[in-house]
Amino acid sequence: MSIKLVVFGLIGYDSIETPMGKRDRVLGGAASYFSTVASYFTKVGLVSVVGKDFEEKYVDFLKNHDVDLTGFERSSEGYTFSWVGTYGEDFGDATTHKNALNVFEHFNPVLPEKYKNAELLFIANIHPALQIQIINQAKNPKIIALDTMNLWINTTRDELLKAIKKVDILFVNESEAKLLAQEKKFAHAVSRLLELGPKRIVVKLGELGAMMGTKETRFFVPAFPSLDVTDPTGAGDSFAGGFMGSLAKFGDYSEKGFRKSMLYGSAMGSLTVENFSVETYEKLDPKRIEERYQALKNMVTI
Amino acid sequence: MSIKLVVFGLIGYDSIETPMGKRDRVLGGAASYFSTVASYFTKVGLVSVVGKDFEEKYVDFLKNHDVDLTGFERSSEGYTFSWVGTYGEDFGDATTHKNALNVFEHFNPVLPEKYKNAELLFIANIHPALQIQIINQAKNPKIIALDTMNLWINTTRDELLKAIKKVDILFVNESEAKLLAQEKKFAHAVSRLLELGPKRIVVKLGELGAMMGTKETRFFVPAFPSLDVTDPTGAGDSFAGGFMGSLAKFGDYSEKGFRKSMLYGSAMGSLTVENFSVETYEKLDPKRIEERYQALKNMVTI
Repeated sequence: MSIKLVVFGLIGYDSIETPMGKRDRVLGGAASYFSTVASYFTKVGLVSVVGKDFEEKYVDFLKNHDVDLTGFERSSEGYTFSWVGTYGEDFGDATTHKNALNVFEHFNPVLPEKYKNAELLFIANIHPALQIQIINQAKNPKIIALDTMNLWINTTRDELLKAIKKVDILFVNESEAKLLAQEKKFAHAVSRLLELGPKRIVVKLGELGAMMGTKETRFFVPAFPSLDVTDPTGAGDSFAGGFMGSLAKFGDYSEKGFRKSMLYGSAMGSLTVENFSVETYEKLDPKRIEERYQALKNMVTI
Repeated sequence: MSIKLVVFGLIGYDSIETPMGKRDRVLGGAASYFSTVASYFTKVGLVSVVGKDFEEKYVDFLKNHDVDLTGFERSSEGYTFSWVGTYGEDFGDATTHKNALNVFEHFNPVLPEKYKNAELLFIANIHPALQIQIINQAKNPKIIALDTMNLWINTTRDELLKAIKKVDILFVNESEAKLLAQEKKFAHAVSRLLELGPKRIVVKLGELGAMMGTKETRFFVPAFPSLDVTDPTGAGDSFAGGFMGSLAKFGDYSEKGFRKSMLYGSAMGSLTVENFSVETYEKLDPKRIEERYQALKNMVTI
């Protein structure tokens, strides 16, 4: 099966505490969530690196999800990326206690030959120089999507703007949208971001859902109103995984197709946060994806 | 023409400064916005009071909009309600410099005989004791909607809960929803509010739009992504005016009907904020309402 969707991003260990419990050194990183989630829709190729301390069981987890690991490096030197964070009672932004890039600090990402013709590329949140490096290796992808965060907006703005200019879709959250656009009003921020290059901006709105904007239109998808949030980590990357995965699966790049993908994104984000790490996907009945998609669709239909 | 929709709330003077300019003692108060906006959909009856300093030109404005003034008292003693506020660059919450209830402080609101059989009742933000007083005078209204604010949630919680128990729809903004529900998470807050009595909760989300929740569903409507915001005052009351006005006009109290009303609410909110006070409605081509409704509908359709 050829690789239709490729993700480049962090794979590593998360140690997480939320009001619902805690986990120590479980599978984390944007690319873990993205590839796991997208695997329910399409064949995903993964470009990432881990260190000598990375446990085999997590490699098996990805293999069991039929994630293609040609681009997945296991360094015999150095340690795996590791994040330690705590969420407060409102499950808002996490407090980060540790964020060690480790083997990712000197990573020279290479897009394997079999990934170069992938139709869709998701460049997860990482230093924009690395993002550009991967984008430049791709041959005529139809859709490149990129995620970023406040850190890069603040510290590597010029490089980030170069990366953004190369992509079709930009994923940000509300505060990042305003910070990057240097606009205090939401509508102005979205308009400004659309002048930076991408044809679409997807703004993640946390517990409210997400918005997709183009020059001509806006589309809102609600967050599924689940009362069973256990761990918000990975919600945004799972959203992206459902969004890009369903685009790859259905191949409909019309406005309607993108709107369907917004619903799949929201569906997957809500499934992820029901459990810690990627535990939801240890045994997920795929029927639940369609059920949640339909429930969300009913929430936007007039 | 019989009165199908009645609003009870403040009418008064607003002195407003925004980054776009300023106005001194212009028509303001929730019921001004609500009745003006709703007049584009149905015949509205107004219960309110103003003082001896209230200018005739503003009475004429309401008359020109065919607002029924049977329940509108003009006191020969005391002064009109008056609010002075400033908005910052993000057009977020206003800073209030003065908020003088004046004649409203000792107002004994009476529902005129010809309003008692109105099908729809909108109880704008005011002390819950007054809200209850009006609700108790209505005869079998089909839909009572109520708005409130942080002040009453904090200072008159028990009375407010009694008022809320009597209504079908509760209008709040996001922070009020969480404060009233005593929940830090949005989904939990909406669920909790639905246990207080109302069958529907409409949460105004400012520049993001609004959400309507029932026990079974959620529906989001975007704010129209206008770049021409001049004065956000009255956005929420205009939303309510479009929402309740269109419900009265079409008489469709199904979920679908309520969703249409959410779009009309958002449309009217966005028209109001293009100008100071109710200036948008000094000469509004009603075609713009349908255009904006359609534009918003396109933003939620899959």
